[in-house]
Amino acid sequence: MPKAKKKTIKKSTVSKKKQAKVSKKIDKKAKSPTVSSDLETMRHSTSHLMAAAVLELYPGTKFGIGPAIDDGFYYDFELPRPISENDLQKIGKRMEEIKKRRWKFEKREVKIEDALKEAKKEKQPYKEDLIKELKKQGENKVSFYKIGDFEDLCRGPHLDNITEIGEFKLTSLAGAYWKGDEKSQMLTRIYGTVFPTKEELDKYLANIEEAKKRDHRKLGRELDLFCFSDLVGPGLPLFTPKGVAIIDELQKHIEGICRNYGFQKVMNPHLAKLHLYELSGHAKKFPDELFSVTSPKGHEFVMRPVLCPHQTQIYASKKRSYRDLPIRYMESGKMYRAEKTGEVGGLSRVYAITVEDGHTFCRVDQIKQEAMNMVKIIKDFYSSLGMWGNHWVSLSVRDYDHQEKYIGDPADWDVCEKMLEEISKEMKLEAKRCEGEAALYGPKLDFMFKDALGKEIQIPTVQLDFATPKRFGLVYTDKEGKEINAVMVHRAVLGSYERFLVLLIEHFAGNFPLWLAPVQAKILPINDKLAKYVDGVKKELEEAGIRVEVDLRTESLGKKIRDSEMERIPYMIIIGDKEKSAKKIAVRSKKHGDLGVLGVADLIAKLREEIEKKK
Amino acid sequence: MPKAKKKTIKKSTVSKKKQAKVSKKIDKKAKSPTVSSDLETMRHSTSHLMAAAVLELYPGTKFGIGPAIDDGFYYDFELPRPISENDLQKIGKRMEEIKKRRWKFEKREVKIEDALKEAKKEKQPYKEDLIKELKKQGENKVSFYKIGDFEDLCRGPHLDNITEIGEFKLTSLAGAYWKGDEKSQMLTRIYGTVFPTKEELDKYLANIEEAKKRDHRKLGRELDLFCFSDLVGPGLPLFTPKGVAIIDELQKHIEGICRNYGFQKVMNPHLAKLHLYELSGHAKKFPDELFSVTSPKGHEFVMRPVLCPHQTQIYASKKRSYRDLPIRYMESGKMYRAEKTGEVGGLSRVYAITVEDGHTFCRVDQIKQEAMNMVKIIKDFYSSLGMWGNHWVSLSVRDYDHQEKYIGDPADWDVCEKMLEEISKEMKLEAKRCEGEAALYGPKLDFMFKDALGKEIQIPTVQLDFATPKRFGLVYTDKEGKEINAVMVHRAVLGSYERFLVLLIEHFAGNFPLWLAPVQAKILPINDKLAKYVDGVKKELEEAGIRVEVDLRTESLGKKIRDSEMERIPYMIIIGDKEKSAKKIAVRSKKHGDLGVLGVADLIAKLREEIEKKK
Repeated sequence: MPKAKKKTIKKSTVSKKKQAKVSKKIDKKAKSPTVSSDLETMRHSTSHLMAAAVLELYPGTKFGIGPAIDDGFYYDFELPRPISENDLQKIGKRMEEIKKRRWKFEKREVKIEDALKEAKKEKQPYKEDLIKELKKQGENKVSFYKIGDFEDLCRGPHLDNITEIGEFKLTSLAGAYWKGDEKSQMLTRIYGTVFPTKEELDKYLANIEEAKKRDHRKLGRELDLFCFSDLVGPGLPLFTPKGVAIIDELQKHIEGICRNYGFQKVMNPHLAKLHLYELSGHAKKFPDELFSVTSPKGHEFVMRPVLCPHQTQIYASKKRSYRDLPIRYMESGKMYRAEKTGEVGGLSRVYAITVEDGHTFCRVDQIKQEAMNMVKIIKDFYSSLGMWGNHWVSLSVRDYDHQEKYIGDPADWDVCEKMLEEISKEMKLEAKRCEGEAALYGPKLDFMFKDALGKEIQIPTVQLDFATPKRFGLVYTDKEGKEINAVMVHRAVLGSYERFLVLLIEHFAGNFPLWLAPVQAKILPINDKLAKYVDGVKKELEEAGIRVEVDLRTESLGKKIRDSEMERIPYMIIIGDKEKSAKKIAVRSKKHGDLGVLGVADLIAKLREEIEKKK
Repeated sequence: MPKAKKKTIKKSTVSKKKQAKVSKKIDKKAKSPTVSSDLETMRHSTSHLMAAAVLELYPGTKFGIGPAIDDGFYYDFELPRPISENDLQKIGKRMEEIKKRRWKFEKREVKIEDALKEAKKEKQPYKEDLIKELKKQGENKVSFYKIGDFEDLCRGPHLDNITEIGEFKLTSLAGAYWKGDEKSQMLTRIYGTVFPTKEELDKYLANIEEAKKRDHRKLGRELDLFCFSDLVGPGLPLFTPKGVAIIDELQKHIEGICRNYGFQKVMNPHLAKLHLYELSGHAKKFPDELFSVTSPKGHEFVMRPVLCPHQTQIYASKKRSYRDLPIRYMESGKMYRAEKTGEVGGLSRVYAITVEDGHTFCRVDQIKQEAMNMVKIIKDFYSSLGMWGNHWVSLSVRDYDHQEKYIGDPADWDVCEKMLEEISKEMKLEAKRCEGEAALYGPKLDFMFKDALGKEIQIPTVQLDFATPKRFGLVYTDKEGKEINAVMVHRAVLGSYERFLVLLIEHFAGNFPLWLAPVQAKILPINDKLAKYVDGVKKELEEAGIRVEVDLRTESLGKKIRDSEMERIPYMIIIGDKEKSAKKIAVRSKKHGDLGVLGVADLIAKLREEIEKKK
C-alpha cells in the first residue's frame, strides 16, 4: 500500500505546466477539482495584494513564492526583521487601505535573460533562482504582474483590479524552508484566506474553529483513546482499551465485508531480509524510510515498509492451479516508516502504522471482476459510515514523461489503465484522470472523501499490478499444465487504523455512532446502596455484548450526567431507589434526551438494533 | 512474560545439589516429579552399561557425562573414531552381552585431590574438568561407581547389579558441545531409553514413531497452516489462511474468557526506546537477545522483548484512584528475541513471537483475588481443551543463594511467596515448591501440562510483582488522597500462539476439534454439472459461520474422500444428482463415518452445537 498523496489535475498547456512545476515542488497542498478557477484566481491575487502591503511596511523584503492553496493562499518572505502573529492585523489593515487605491493588475512579458538581469539588479535572489530553473527547462520568456509598486514573476491569471478581491483574513504565520529544503534559507510564510462574501469568510473561519475543537489529539486525550509515553518515544502511540474498542469494531466490520467477497486472513512477521524489498522495488523507492534491525548475534533484517511482499510469499509457498484462482488475502498488521523526527505527531504521522491491506492473485480474465469487487467493498464500507457519495475518484496513471519511476512492462500498463477506465465507466465512478499519481507497479483508482468539515481525505484505492508477480515469479499452471504469471490487484479500504481513527474522531467530533462508541452506556447510580442492583444491570448488559461502565463516584446526578456527556457516552442509565424497586432503569440518550423508564431487556433490544444497523 | 523453562524439584541434600548442578549446566532436560526415582536410577545405570560397552568397542574413549533424562538417558563421548547410526546396533548388542556378566555396581569414595590425580593419569580431561568444578564448590570427597573395567565419577544412586536393568534401546546419535559451550570440544552423544518390561519399551518406541508423525513441521506443511520463505528469512513464519483460522479462534476464545474476569484489550507499538527496558530490568537480563532498530535518519529503538513495560505506560498515562483498581489489560501482539541463528526452527523457536499477555494493576488487598481469577482463567481455558487435570503446578520461588539475580525488595518477595502458597492451598493446586524458578520480578505459579503423547509442556503462569510498579512509579491515590504504589499481577494462559499451535498440532495430530478446524466441512461434488447447487449449499454454510471448501477437481469420489481425510477435514458433504434433486446433502464424519442424507439446516444445527460446546 503506497502512502496517501494529494492529487493534481493534468494542466492543459505545456508552458503553464512547466512554470507550475517549479512552484509545485514547494507547494504540497495541491488543488482538488471542486475548487472553482475564479476563486483560485482571487486567492492568488490576494497573495499579491498581501505582498504589496508587506513591501510598504517592510522595505527591503525579498520575495519567495505566493500561490493559491486549497483553503486560501500564502506568500513566503525574507523580511528585514522578524514579525509575530500580532503583526498580521497591521498587514491586513494596510491591505484594506491599498485595496481602496483601485490598482489594476498589469501584465508584462519579458525575455528570460532580461528577467534574470532585473532580478539580480533588484536583489531578489529567490526570483533569480526561479527564473534560472525556468531557463533550464527551456523557457525563453516569462511574465510579470504588477500592482502599484509591487511587480512579481508570475504565470497568472489574475483579477483585473484589486477592488474585485473579496473579504480576506490573514490566518497564521509559519517558518518554511525555501523550496522545502532543510538546507536552504528559512523564510516567513504568511497564510491567509479570501472569499467573495463576508458570509462565506465567516463560515470558513467558524469551520476552522470547529476543526480545532475536533482535533484528534485533543479529543483522543479527552476521550482516553490513545496516549504517548516519553519512555516509549514519540511517533509510537499506545492504544488504551477505549481506542482498541473502536479499532476492533472497525476490523470486525471490514473483515466481515471482505469475507463476503472471498478474502481470507493471513498473518505475517513484521521483519524480513532486505532482499525481499530489493526485489519488490520498495528498497529503492523508500531507502531513507527503512528501519534496519540488527542484533549482537549478527542478525540483519529490515522492518516491513509495506505488507504486499510477504503476501506474495504465501502465494509462492504452494503450487497453484488455474482452478485455485483468484486467491484473496487480507491482513491487519503493522508496517514501519522512518519518518522525519520533527514530522511525527498525533496519529496522523507515526513510525508504526497498523494497516488493513488486501491483495488478490488472479488470472488476466479475472482482474476486472476482482477490481470491481474491491470497488464494491469500498462502497459497502463507506456507505455504512454514511460517507459514500461525498467523494470523487481519481484514475491515477503514469507520469508519461518519467516512466523510469515505475516498474513493469509499458504494454501491461496500457492494459491496466484501459481496464480501470472501463470499470470507471461501467460502475459510473466518473473517475478523473490524474497523471503521475500511479503506484510504483501500476495504475489505480483512488477515492477522495470529504469529512464533516469538508476536509478532503484520500484513503481507499484499487491498484492493478502485473509487475510484482513477475518479479517474484508468482505463477499458476493453466489447463495445459503451462506456467503462467499471476496478476495482483491491491486494495486498501480504511487504510491504516491510525489515520482512519483521525478521520473518525474529527468527522464525528467524538460522537461516534453506537456501534463504534468505546463506551456505549454508562450507569449512573444515585447512591452507594444500589451497588448490587447496579451490578446486576451491568452484567446483563455485558452479557448482551454492550460496552458499559459504572460511575461509582459520590457526585451529584447532575454532575454525573454532565461528565457522561463530555465523554460522549451515547446512553446514560440512571438508577435510583425507585428504579431498583420497580426492577427498571431510567434511560437518557445523549442525542434525544430523556427516554423514560424501561426494562433492561427493552434497552438491550433498542441498542442491539441500533448497533446492528450501524445508525 | 518470561521464557518457558523446564523445572527441577529442589534436592534435599546440599552435597547432591552441588554435584547435580554441574551436570545441570549441560543437561537442559530436567526431570518432572512424575518420573519415579526407581526408573531414573535404572536409566542412569543403563548409561553406565552403555559406557562400558563403548569402552570395550572403542578403547581410548574419553568420557563426558551420562545422565538420566526425561525419556531415557544419554552419554557424551570423545571417541577415537567417528561412528554412525549403524553402530548403535553393535553397541546395543555388546550391552546385552555385558549384562549377562552379572556385574555389581561398586561404589568408592575418594578424596577430591586423589580423584583429580586419577583422572589426569587416566587421561580423562572431562572428568578432570568436572572434579575441578566440584573442588571449587568446596567439596572434599567425590564418589565413583564401577562395573567391570568401567569406573565413573558419579553421585549415584545405581542399581545393585546390571542384571536388574530392564529392556533398553539406543535411539539416536547427536553432536553435543562439552558443557553446551560452542567454543568447547564437540562430543558424540548417544541417546537411549530403558524400561522395566519389553511391553513398556515397545509402547515408548511406538510413541516416538507417533510423535514423528505428529511433528508440527510435517503436519504444518501438509495441512498448509504456515510456511517459510527464503526471501523473508528463517525464524519468521508466515501464517496462511488456515493457520490464521486457528489463531483467530484461539484469540476469540481466550479474550472471551478473560473479559468475563474484567480484562480489557490494549494495543501497543512493537518498538520502544532502550531506556524503557533499562528501567524494567529486561535490558540487563536479555542483552544479547535484543534487536536494535535504526534508520538513516538517526532513529534508535529496540524491538520489545516483552509486553509488560508498554502496558505500564498506559496505566501511567492517567491519574488513577483506589476506586479505579483493579485495572486489567490484555494484548495479543508480537515480541522479538534475537535467538541464535542455528536454534530457530519450525514454530518452536522463532524471532517474532505472537504472545497473548495480560496484567492486572491492583491494590495489595486485591492481589489474592486477582491471582485466583487468573488461575480460574487458566482452568477455564485448559478445561475447554480437555487438558485440565493432566498437569502439575510449580510454586516457583527465588534461588535463595543468588538473590542478586532478582529485582525488588526481599520483604515484598516474602509476602508474595506466602500469598501464592495460600492460593495453592485454598484452590487445591498442590503446587510443588521449585527454587530458583521465579521470574525476574517475583514468584509465580507455573502450570505444567502433558500432551496426548505424555510430553510435558509449561505454558500458563501467574506472577506477582511489587518491583515493576515501583520502578515505573505506578501509583494510585487512596481514600485520603495519598499516593500508593500499585501491584502488578502477570498472567499467561496460552503463552505464544506459535508455541501453542505446536502443542495443538501435536496433541491432536492435526485432528482439531471442530471449533478449531481450519476447514470444518468440505463439499465433494460428484460431477461438474452440480456447480450451482453446490454453490448454494456453500453460501448457506458460510452464512452460518461454517468454514467450508469445495473440491472442484475432476477426481473420483473415493479419491476426494481419501484426500479430505488426509487433510483432517471433520465433515465431508457429498453431493450427487440424487442429493441435488432432493435438495439434501449426504454427510460423512471423519470420526464417525457415514451420517446419511440430511437437510443443510440439519447439518448446520449439528455443527453449531458441536462448535458451541467445543467438543
